[in-house]
Amino acid sequence: MISNPERQFKAMMKISSKLIRLIKQSNSFVITGHINPDGDSVGSCLGLALGLKKIGKKDVTVLTKDPLPESLEFLPSAKTVKHSPPKKECDLLFILDCNTLDRTGFESISAKNIIVLDHHVLPASTARSGFHRSLAECIIDTGSAATGMIVYKLLKALKIDIEKNIAANLYAAIIVDTGGFRYSNSSPEALRIASHLVEAGAKPWSISKEIYENKPYRSMKLLGLSLATLERKNSVAWISTTDSMFKKTGATPGNCEDFVDFPRKVKGVEVAVFFRYNGTNAYKVSLRSKGKINVQKIAKSFDGGGHAPAAGCRVTGSLKEVQDKILKAIKKEMKK
Amino acid sequence: MISNPERQFKAMMKISSKLIRLIKQSNSFVITGHINPDGDSVGSCLGLALGLKKIGKKDVTVLTKDPLPESLEFLPSAKTVKHSPPKKECDLLFILDCNTLDRTGFESISAKNIIVLDHHVLPASTARSGFHRSLAECIIDTGSAATGMIVYKLLKALKIDIEKNIAANLYAAIIVDTGGFRYSNSSPEALRIASHLVEAGAKPWSISKEIYENKPYRSMKLLGLSLATLERKNSVAWISTTDSMFKKTGATPGNCEDFVDFPRKVKGVEVAVFFRYNGTNAYKVSLRSKGKINVQKIAKSFDGGGHAPAAGCRVTGSLKEVQDKILKAIKKEMKK
Repeated sequence: MISNPERQFKAMMKISSKLIRLIKQSNSFVITGHINPDGDSVGSCLGLALGLKKIGKKDVTVLTKDPLPESLEFLPSAKTVKHSPPKKECDLLFILDCNTLDRTGFESISAKNIIVLDHHVLPASTARSGFHRSLAECIIDTGSAATGMIVYKLLKALKIDIEKNIAANLYAAIIVDTGGFRYSNSSPEALRIASHLVEAGAKPWSISKEIYENKPYRSMKLLGLSLATLERKNSVAWISTTDSMFKKTGATPGNCEDFVDFPRKVKGVEVAVFFRYNGTNAYKVSLRSKGKINVQKIAKSFDGGGHAPAAGCRVTGSLKEVQDKILKAIKKEMKK
Repeated sequence: MISNPERQFKAMMKISSKLIRLIKQSNSFVITGHINPDGDSVGSCLGLALGLKKIGKKDVTVLTKDPLPESLEFLPSAKTVKHSPPKKECDLLFILDCNTLDRTGFESISAKNIIVLDHHVLPASTARSGFHRSLAECIIDTGSAATGMIVYKLLKALKIDIEKNIAANLYAAIIVDTGGFRYSNSSPEALRIASHLVEAGAKPWSISKEIYENKPYRSMKLLGLSLATLERKNSVAWISTTDSMFKKTGATPGNCEDFVDFPRKVKGVEVAVFFRYNGTNAYKVSLRSKGKINVQKIAKSFDGGGHAPAAGCRVTGSLKEVQDKILKAIKKEMKK
């Protein structure tokens, strides 16, 4: 149990012998990530699962609440992903790329021991909840650009040979969370691990092509409709996706993963926002900053989370109301 | 003199002591790259120049025939770039990221010794020309993703401390030529050198932001309106930009340069088309192929030109008429 992410960051540098022992002693594993799975979440889960199989673990289940976005279906072993938990209690439950059961979408999953491997800041309310004191191990390394890097280190500590399918999953995890090594979290370590993964057989072009150049038609169509809503005020730009756009195109929320990048690419923009319809009278809000503004603070004030340059939250209200609330909060944060 | 790139590739692994000696003995340097300078060419030249200054060389000139593209003006020392050669003969002329004087745009430059550092294949005609036999040293390492990697190794061999401004230039060089580590040339070595450069102070986000995230607002707005017109039939996808979209956004044809990439990014698409309003009753048509169809043939049949994977033409008629003509021609070409 460690509730202080900073302290955990140091602890991370060494995978504990307790964690290694726990993995070696366990026979049945469930590995899950967060709802609306992204590349880091799924790549980390699959990379870890393939690794555990390499050391003879036969009962390993990767679980995601929501279906994988189409762009991630190419990941080695993606077809093995299940969407409902095994009926019997497992020995070890891994929660990856998030740090509460709530975020996995499986609140009542049954496990002898639970392990969290994540790189997101632990919200104060969560830290107080006591959940983390019940964990067998909790590694929250906010210094890691991707959870995939933590999994890489864990596999190394387990002396698991990282073959090409593991490498491809972890490479995908890292490029998704570093924006293809563009974001400021593209640390020397992220690049060094990526270098090892390419050496181990990950193919940058095959993976990048699938992630960046294989957009489902309905996703591109939705991007068009959303981009047509582009607005800008000073250094803030935003786009929106409404319920009717989803209906018109047949696209799903998973098809919108990179939409917020487009308003961000506008010259002179410091903060980009993507408003996505999220059920009656609610919008999911993705925030991106080019560096000057900490958008995590804005997301946090709406009970959301994330990182300083990339954060998100869910806000209730009509599109206009949600936009007003968020744009006001950004303006306030910019004045600080 | 080495005219065989393969042999040179091996030679490359070790920077020769002759090259090191030559640099140490020389006092005046001119460093140039190719015409229409790109990130690898300019970043390599500036990185090398800054490195030479670190070991006390005072007379170092970076030279490009054409002005730098706006997106590269942020590179450290970019302002020092000259566009006409010094009048007096220099001790050492470096030709970077190309391998003939012709490609630099400075055919009659005067130098005691010439050195080529490049990663492009030497055309047979060039190899026979005798130019390379006149060189003091010629390193053509086709295994390097970027010339910036060769410069990195040269600076290391010279025991030059790679500080943050050198690192930023070489990092930019590498990301431009690897498509931000997306292309298949993103080798373990490219990533490893990138890791060292970030360690040395290159800032991935500051650099990527300047290179990739600087689209004018009106261009993004127009992209949205155009993308909203996306249509698809089998493996052909197309978008259009009309006169009223140009008027609505204030964008210009120059703002549409990469639009055809978007229908190309659609999953399952083999041929992508962009129809752009081009004066009363006429459209400019851009065609892209993922490899199976030769779109040059299609463009040619409308008096256009280009290459097998990327071509264009101008067609008269209403948007509907032009689309019908082009889609029919694509269908015909696909049946061949």
